[in-house]
Amino acid sequence: MAKTNPGWFFEDYRVGQVIAHAVPRTVSGGERALYHALYPARHALYSSDEFARNCGLSVPPLDDLIAFHTVFGKTVPDISLNAIANLGYAEGRWLLPVVPGDTLRSESEVIGLKQNSNGKSGVVWVRTRGLNQRDKAVLEYVRWVMVRKRDLDAAAPETKVPDLAKVVAPEDLVIQAGLDFTNYNFTLAGEPHKWRDYAIGEQVDHVDGVTVEEAEHMMATRLWQNTAKVHFDATNRADGQRLIYGGHVISMARALSFNGLANAQMVVGLNAGAHANPCFTGDTVRAWSEVLDKSETNAPGVGAIRLRLVATKGGEPFVLKGDDGKYLPEVLLDLDYWALMPM
Amino acid sequence: MAKTNPGWFFEDYRVGQVIAHAVPRTVSGGERALYHALYPARHALYSSDEFARNCGLSVPPLDDLIAFHTVFGKTVPDISLNAIANLGYAEGRWLLPVVPGDTLRSESEVIGLKQNSNGKSGVVWVRTRGLNQRDKAVLEYVRWVMVRKRDLDAAAPETKVPDLAKVVAPEDLVIQAGLDFTNYNFTLAGEPHKWRDYAIGEQVDHVDGVTVEEAEHMMATRLWQNTAKVHFDATNRADGQRLIYGGHVISMARALSFNGLANAQMVVGLNAGAHANPCFTGDTVRAWSEVLDKSETNAPGVGAIRLRLVATKGGEPFVLKGDDGKYLPEVLLDLDYWALMPM
Amino acid sequence: MAKTNPGWFFEDYRVGQVIAHAVPRTVSGGERALYHALYPARHALYSSDEFARNCGLSVPPLDDLIAFHTVFGKTVPDISLNAIANLGYAEGRWLLPVVPGDTLRSESEVIGLKQNSNGKSGVVWVRTRGLNQRDKAVLEYVRWVMVRKRDLDAAAPETKVPDLAKVVAPEDLVIQAGLDFTNYNFTLAGEPHKWRDYAIGEQVDHVDGVTVEEAEHMMATRLWQNTAKVHFDATNRADGQRLIYGGHVISMARALSFNGLANAQMVVGLNAGAHANPCFTGDTVRAWSEVLDKSETNAPGVGAIRLRLVATKGGEPFVLKGDDGKYLPEVLLDLDYWALMPM
Repeated sequence: MAKTNPGWFFEDYRVGQVIAHAVPRTVSGGERALYHALYPARHALYSSDEFARNCGLSVPPLDDLIAFHTVFGKTVPDISLNAIANLGYAEGRWLLPVVPGDTLRSESEVIGLKQNSNGKSGVVWVRTRGLNQRDKAVLEYVRWVMVRKRDLDAAAPETKVPDLAKVVAPEDLVIQAGLDFTNYNFTLAGEPHKWRDYAIGEQVDHVDGVTVEEAEHMMATRLWQNTAKVHFDATNRADGQRLIYGGHVISMARALSFNGLANAQMVVGLNAGAHANPCFTGDTVRAWSEVLDKSETNAPGVGAIRLRLVATKGGEPFVLKGDDGKYLPEVLLDLDYWALMPM
Repeated sequence: MAKTNPGWFFEDYRVGQVIAHAVPRTVSGGERALYHALYPARHALYSSDEFARNCGLSVPPLDDLIAFHTVFGKTVPDISLNAIANLGYAEGRWLLPVVPGDTLRSESEVIGLKQNSNGKSGVVWVRTRGLNQRDKAVLEYVRWVMVRKRDLDAAAPETKVPDLAKVVAPEDLVIQAGLDFTNYNFTLAGEPHKWRDYAIGEQVDHVDGVTVEEAEHMMATRLWQNTAKVHFDATNRADGQRLIYGGHVISMARALSFNGLANAQMVVGLNAGAHANPCFTGDTVRAWSEVLDKSETNAPGVGAIRLRLVATKGGEPFVLKGDDGKYLPEVLLDLDYWALMPM
Repeated sequence: MAKTNPGWFFEDYRVGQVIAHAVPRTVSGGERALYHALYPARHALYSSDEFARNCGLSVPPLDDLIAFHTVFGKTVPDISLNAIANLGYAEGRWLLPVVPGDTLRSESEVIGLKQNSNGKSGVVWVRTRGLNQRDKAVLEYVRWVMVRKRDLDAAAPETKVPDLAKVVAPEDLVIQAGLDFTNYNFTLAGEPHKWRDYAIGEQVDHVDGVTVEEAEHMMATRLWQNTAKVHFDATNRADGQRLIYGGHVISMARALSFNGLANAQMVVGLNAGAHANPCFTGDTVRAWSEVLDKSETNAPGVGAIRLRLVATKGGEPFVLKGDDGKYLPEVLLDLDYWALMPM
């Protein structure tokens, strides 16, 4: 019997199944340093332990996207090794801070299945939770992927398309215990703009660009123990290109968004996301944001802001789709998330 | 007088000489994070502090190959700076865990010398030991290298070829105090295959491939403070290529072997090893393994497995040498080691 | 109002102004590991906690250049985002060790201004201080840069050219409390050469070369949160090249200088520095040093040595300028610094 993991195929999933993903991972200051080396990350709460403490967080957390990538990476061998496409995200919430020394593992529940009309593949919806060493959930999100069938003759499962919220309701966002922005230091944070200074509909061009390299995206993707072949093996595609992990683009764009959104400190909700076009080495990634919504919170001085974060590899900012309603070819990412800001 | 180190030449070595290598190194969570960024390392014992504790290791250790590379790197300025070829390894044993905060240094004893018939070079055998800050040996191994003569007229030393074991006897393998695999979590480890599921002679194709980049192998090689020019200086060879440190290929292949040997957790013995052909940037490294032997141990639930680990840059798996008895040109590495698995 | 930072222009500066730079940064073992991966750094005091303790430093410090780059990086958004050229350094002193867990921030005082005769730009002199979480200065230095004007019609400020010391006087160098080289271990340090073995005027060719890669310099530059576009964005220049951060060349040259100056352990003074020519990916960086001066100190067994450190991308060592008095095109860096050595 072959001992290697062929990954799961569409007909292997059942609605209600809970998959415990392998290889827990302890994260530390090493992961934090690498995150700062791989992305131009400058949000002060994750750069400075002192800044985090001044915001009421007695144990300074690691970047929210370190948690996301670590939890996501574990799901790849079971969810997306045979995926044709990563179709979407919904109902993502950060639930507990991840701090140096924490050990993360992931589990996913299959919440939806729909075979494609071509009979060759289907869509799998999973709700993934990241758990720490105390079995507390630190993060949860839904994603859905299109997965190949192994056996084209396998019967189609009963279709179940989950009913997913278009947006995480602001009252469902989890704010870390103790978070308090009333003594927030805008000088150290890098920009004076408060939550109240942003208007719904406002757009920000983040100006800077970063040309990406093979060594960088492979190091990042390995750091999260994401094993998908397409990111590492240049012989995998006819054109010899390695596809850059979509999460690398998310982190690059989020880091670039510092310039104009330096005070959108914490990512607390993931409403939706599309990896609109593939990213390859040599692409210069840029980003722009749009304010989609705002909400007050119960935490002192803390406002929630809903942002569209778009990564591109060229073209004009603030243009997302063509007349045909499809993403323009230079758009890499269209992400819809909630962040917390000083009010 | 020139103050730079020209390295040692063949006529500088004497049998019985003990060389204390320079620049001790403190390793920490930073080295661990980098190891995970540079290689697709997923063995759970080194990824998760919790998993290690569940296996009876109260202080979670760093990857065994971090110890190997760190100890090896220190020997380069004295042993292989003027080496023509790295010829072999033998009698390697991991003796004590290396944990974050440990400081490692190396020393080597010259145990054999044999001038080549051409009179221009010779073979030097050394037994190297890695020592921690308490002067306890953490690792020892023999390697032999072909080294240039500085002065071709220097007299040949008396030939002494050490008598080396072809294999570390299983009873000589050192198992860390407390190691216990009776509560081993196969789900978290990533594969269900136990020691008893592997048959002697069984072969495993590890399936995945990683295309290597200059920036990655140089970062890895520097991390171990290996100073050999050929790895860093593109002007050093006529073809402008940098030769990738053989240890980079060892770690890449060992990490790839997770897929099919996820439970071969700890490397405890190094029986033999050949860097069959050079590796260069752009090569896509793949790996396959063969079970050479198995042995029970005294530790609860712990079996020893002797594995051949072969790294290639293409070609078919399970083919090692041509009709001429020489390694095929696509074979990069042929390593023979002992690992510990749950029984 | 645009919320992104356009950087400062020449007419925005006033003599006497103090600029508090944004984004404090906590440094740890992760930064140390990355420093060793990015540069062939082997100075024992920063490689081994044990070696540092043996030299009287109870809390082992991070490399002095980690402190420099971290402090420098924070100044970029306010000082050099619109800089045409980085013109010089002076009066640099390391004042306190930076240890894992420290949080650094930077502030700069404008100490000189001089508009260029073309009216399009001017020179800005700043004295920058790095401060730790206890508001203690860990480092200070003067640098001057040529900065564009936003509004060419803006009136020229009153010219003030600061009176800067050509060299930090040896008696002004700060030696860390407890530093004691009387039990210095030359074997572990890697070379036998003492302070007394170096003669003023002596030159050392550091022999080794490192060919630099895009991924490496970008990771380094991001690690210090240096945001200058020219280092990251290949679309920024007509030739598609990314300019390598001058500090990357400083660290590369300093690390290469181990070979011949392994005992020049601590960098304590920065007298002057010129980034003579730009460095690009594919360049092979080499280094040579010249002893400019020596001085005894009050610390036991500790001597100060003033060194010229030159980085090149080819050419002969020990040749700096052409007949025209200009730096040769292959010279990348001409740095004048004080280091501490065992006597």
